[in-house]
Amino acid sequence: MGPGTARIAVDLLGGDEAPAVVVDGALRAVRADPDLHLLLVGPTEVAAGVVDALTPAQRTRITIRATRTAAGPADHAPRADSTVRAAVSAVRDGAADALVSAGSTGATVSAAALGFGRWTDVRRPALVASLPAVSGPVILLDVGGSLEPRPATLARHAVLGAAYAAVAHAIVAPRVGLLSVGTEAGKGDRPRRAADPLLAAAPLPCDARYVGLVEGYDVTLGLRADVVVTDGFTGNVLLKAIEGAYAMAGGPPASGGAPRAAALLGVAGTVVVCHGAATPDDVASGIALAAHLWRRRATDRVREQIAGLPTGDGTDQEHGEALAGSAGHPAADRREPKGWP
Amino acid sequence: MGPGTARIAVDLLGGDEAPAVVVDGALRAVRADPDLHLLLVGPTEVAAGVVDALTPAQRTRITIRATRTAAGPADHAPRADSTVRAAVSAVRDGAADALVSAGSTGATVSAAALGFGRWTDVRRPALVASLPAVSGPVILLDVGGSLEPRPATLARHAVLGAAYAAVAHAIVAPRVGLLSVGTEAGKGDRPRRAADPLLAAAPLPCDARYVGLVEGYDVTLGLRADVVVTDGFTGNVLLKAIEGAYAMAGGPPASGGAPRAAALLGVAGTVVVCHGAATPDDVASGIALAAHLWRRRATDRVREQIAGLPTGDGTDQEHGEALAGSAGHPAADRREPKGWP
Repeated sequence: MGPGTARIAVDLLGGDEAPAVVVDGALRAVRADPDLHLLLVGPTEVAAGVVDALTPAQRTRITIRATRTAAGPADHAPRADSTVRAAVSAVRDGAADALVSAGSTGATVSAAALGFGRWTDVRRPALVASLPAVSGPVILLDVGGSLEPRPATLARHAVLGAAYAAVAHAIVAPRVGLLSVGTEAGKGDRPRRAADPLLAAAPLPCDARYVGLVEGYDVTLGLRADVVVTDGFTGNVLLKAIEGAYAMAGGPPASGGAPRAAALLGVAGTVVVCHGAATPDDVASGIALAAHLWRRRATDRVREQIAGLPTGDGTDQEHGEALAGSAGHPAADRREPKGWP
Repeated sequence: MGPGTARIAVDLLGGDEAPAVVVDGALRAVRADPDLHLLLVGPTEVAAGVVDALTPAQRTRITIRATRTAAGPADHAPRADSTVRAAVSAVRDGAADALVSAGSTGATVSAAALGFGRWTDVRRPALVASLPAVSGPVILLDVGGSLEPRPATLARHAVLGAAYAAVAHAIVAPRVGLLSVGTEAGKGDRPRRAADPLLAAAPLPCDARYVGLVEGYDVTLGLRADVVVTDGFTGNVLLKAIEGAYAMAGGPPASGGAPRAAALLGVAGTVVVCHGAATPDDVASGIALAAHLWRRRATDRVREQIAGLPTGDGTDQEHGEALAGSAGHPAADRREPKGWP
């Protein structure tokens, strides 16, 4: 297999309309990318539906791992025999390079944390979305990995977002902003006011620089920042409101709409989470994102970029325990909307 | 003066581009509405700029209250001689029916709270915005009155929003939703999970009903709810991101864009706050909103609708003190973005 080859494990049973939508998305992805190989994880008869629809040449790029159990909605400790756990195992075993699921975000995040392990210096994995903006993408995180606005988590996610912008989008010297209600120092609720100095003090990778507080406009227009940091609650609500706004306006901008697939950062594997209500095109774009991230070795390179940078996660942990009775275990993900980053 | 007459006090010195933009907006408003009278509050030479541009007939609808001092950015205790304080006094004295300012939200809210008094059973005034949606407006609150997500405040604002939807927009039996990351019970961060049962238990006015948790889509599309309740931080960020999304998409929907004027609910007077970066059209639409609210006697009728309904503000106060060291004084507004609802 050539250097451009990407082998993506696909959770056939993840998503509101699974398996039909996932099968359809997988077919589109295989036909669109000749260097893409898929490991289909799910019932053999479902996988057969993909194989049968392909040409003999395309079939050589498909392998199957038979599994019958879906993780179930918002299942934060999915069974070992669930498709999402099997997809994680396939990546861990080297049978695939990355995985894609449109199932419960909570199930996928915890399956990934269990199977790959979380990065020791990232207590709370982040879901990272890339939105179209005036001059290139805006990287928004967190969009649902962890809902409570903890200052130390915001600071850590700023580091992750900066590295991701450089590695996955080749953004040079990314500008990192903290989402708030105004740009002057001191604007915002208590977590933002506490996080602003933490971000200002945090060494950022990839020549990134902290530009201070940014506003809602900057998420959609991207004039002030390339990376916008917020908590998973605000990010999730924003992403869906923006998607709705593009629908209201008669369609997304030419540069693309609100993403329905997000990368998971903070676990030792390449994982893409698709919207639970994903369309076949959403699933295909999630698969394409996973292949893109693998080809850039994005996960490993983000990990390298942040290694050794100071972490605020001690604070994060204390704060997390105080706030959520959770010391960084992705239990918060239990509360995640089904299948949405 | 006829029953349709509305006398609106306009803060000539409020807003980033004041007084020029406010003068321009005032002129557009006067020309558009023959039953509109303006009380111009600010330097006489600025007010003269408005008068000189009007016809003799139009001039009969203008009065002036000379004041030279702007409240200044995010001034949460504006001087007694500031234009915003003078505008509040003019309404309190009966010289005007309502006031409009594009100055600091914090200054306007605290001037209104000082001059009119806050409703005893509404500890935290809310800024209420009306967004275009698929079938009529969506009422979003709070968009910046109070930034911390307090469950009791969310519950109280649900009551305010329901009454406002019925009174200001004639929405019959409004559907009220609590903004979260998913629709199933239990979705969301801690304040949402605590607020959901409070909203479910809260008697709502105007035959409104609580429909449970709603998502970001519902703010822009309005399919599930007529009133979307959230904290002022999330609402403020959302409103600006939606405005940016419409700009990205090449323009707002035919039904209108993201509003740049919001009504203040919770004080004993009719107050409209305009975006600090308001254009003349924004100021004119803010003046038109104030006139509309006065003609419907919206403030008094909302007050009547919520009178006697149980209040969660005891909890709110304790929670508020615990969280913000502020027992309901609009000190939170100090942190508000300049002039943005």
